[in-house]
Amino acid sequence: MRKPIADWYASRNDRGSAIIARQDPVVYEGGNYADAVEESQIAAYERDGFLLLEDIFSDAETQVLLDEVKRMSADSSIVSMEESITEPGSNEVRSIFRVHELSDMLGNLARDPRLINVARQILGSEVYMHQSRANMKPGFKGKEFYWHSDFETWHVEDGMPRMRALSCSVLLSDNNACNGPLMLVPSSHQQFVSCQGQTPDDHYKKSLKKQEYGVPDPLSLQLLVEQGGIKPMMAKAGSVVFFDCNTMHGSNGNISPWPRANVFMVYNSTENALGAPMHGLKPRPEHIAARRDFSALVPQEAPLALA
Amino acid sequence: MRKPIADWYASRNDRGSAIIARQDPVVYEGGNYADAVEESQIAAYERDGFLLLEDIFSDAETQVLLDEVKRMSADSSIVSMEESITEPGSNEVRSIFRVHELSDMLGNLARDPRLINVARQILGSEVYMHQSRANMKPGFKGKEFYWHSDFETWHVEDGMPRMRALSCSVLLSDNNACNGPLMLVPSSHQQFVSCQGQTPDDHYKKSLKKQEYGVPDPLSLQLLVEQGGIKPMMAKAGSVVFFDCNTMHGSNGNISPWPRANVFMVYNSTENALGAPMHGLKPRPEHIAARRDFSALVPQEAPLALA
Repeated sequence: MRKPIADWYASRNDRGSAIIARQDPVVYEGGNYADAVEESQIAAYERDGFLLLEDIFSDAETQVLLDEVKRMSADSSIVSMEESITEPGSNEVRSIFRVHELSDMLGNLARDPRLINVARQILGSEVYMHQSRANMKPGFKGKEFYWHSDFETWHVEDGMPRMRALSCSVLLSDNNACNGPLMLVPSSHQQFVSCQGQTPDDHYKKSLKKQEYGVPDPLSLQLLVEQGGIKPMMAKAGSVVFFDCNTMHGSNGNISPWPRANVFMVYNSTENALGAPMHGLKPRPEHIAARRDFSALVPQEAPLALA
Repeated sequence: MRKPIADWYASRNDRGSAIIARQDPVVYEGGNYADAVEESQIAAYERDGFLLLEDIFSDAETQVLLDEVKRMSADSSIVSMEESITEPGSNEVRSIFRVHELSDMLGNLARDPRLINVARQILGSEVYMHQSRANMKPGFKGKEFYWHSDFETWHVEDGMPRMRALSCSVLLSDNNACNGPLMLVPSSHQQFVSCQGQTPDDHYKKSLKKQEYGVPDPLSLQLLVEQGGIKPMMAKAGSVVFFDCNTMHGSNGNISPWPRANVFMVYNSTENALGAPMHGLKPRPEHIAARRDFSALVPQEAPLALA
């Protein structure tokens, strides 16, 4: 079941940890496929592996989106679905997956030009939704999320061939130094950290609560941080963070009373559709890694009037 | 074994949670007992319950202090002592207690006028060392420290009668938004949060790793934070944080590669010597709560040449 040809981004194959240079562009087609952000912003994204856009959604829009996420978190027909993940040791909803299909409003958000056209511009092609979710990090007892590259997981567990995907996090609450903001390692997207260890089937059920596989080694992390530092995404609700699929990121826990919420969407290029997972793993469920339909999401004509 | 007279700051007596107004001054003797900081700084301390003094120790001094703490953490004769606390699930030293007696250098630090005279000025009397320790919060896996008032514990478990003590944390590494800095709730020192539940004997052995008793309820915390917010002590190595014994504080975990280290000293007024613990608890060990000798620490004549 091993792939017959050499896999540049091989990981979890017991060869030990390694840092491997990225082989793929960060920005495709010169950043000219769409016209959502400035050339200087594209250049910053290419250099850093992320771009923070502040004040993209108005207070009223942000409130409407937050209300929608809260409504869904309290809807027992949604909470009982496989798509809903609860905090370890409680029934509090931590994430709901596939929100762009479970909610009309969030489906529209996925096609809002303020988001999807940034993705199209950077990835240089049409895009589809690889994964979407709403995250709620509760106050007082929000757990940490350890460092990881999403691409490492998507490549190994979902068979995503190349680095031509990005994540976008729409902040629905203020993120500050005290409530466990997303932390990104600038420039880390230029290097792939191959991880040790093998992956059991059904790993995803646990990995969403606590990671044990695909965990970068401390020495590689230390090196990446020495080179690039760490940028905590401290920004107001209504801001949006775009980051490359291979940018190393994580977040500390949150003992503050301030919860954190966001809607998180992963746009993948239609040129980068999933293949078979590595190491003979069986595919993860549709809500974690879409593979039923790789056709392009059609952008809305204009920004949505959400409120 | 219960105290015969009413205890204003009763806690863990099964009457449920309560917020009780502070009965004691914050600054004693008008802040005129010594002359270490400005009147405006004393006023800020009185209002907020803490004072951050930046650049108190030079880079060279900070390095010498950090080297001393590292030396102690690697000294097996010290690591094997009851005074040394390790991280849950590892042998890495997290704290060493009674450092002002285990190290000549840190003993001198305790009597450095830049520290002890601030304590004398605020507490309006001579002071002795209630507790001292060096804290090392490792990178990658530093654990959170949940919200608490030190006084709640010192009152219940150590029999400290009144709020006439303060802590001082000498930062030996840079503290930023990413490595789990000390977080303080401004003005929280004016209110005492009485906690639920009883306290088993030998609680301290576990409480230094994970708290279960003396934990403030979420509603009280929410209220204190709505009133005062949260201030993370983001400051360079060599800075010093002074905070009142009843200021609510805690810290998030630390997944960054950057460890945090500090020397933490608790000055108590010689007018506030310990009595018997509450609820018939047996006294905690000397290195957690000094009760062998309440005589005043004598300030050094001048700042120490540490390096």
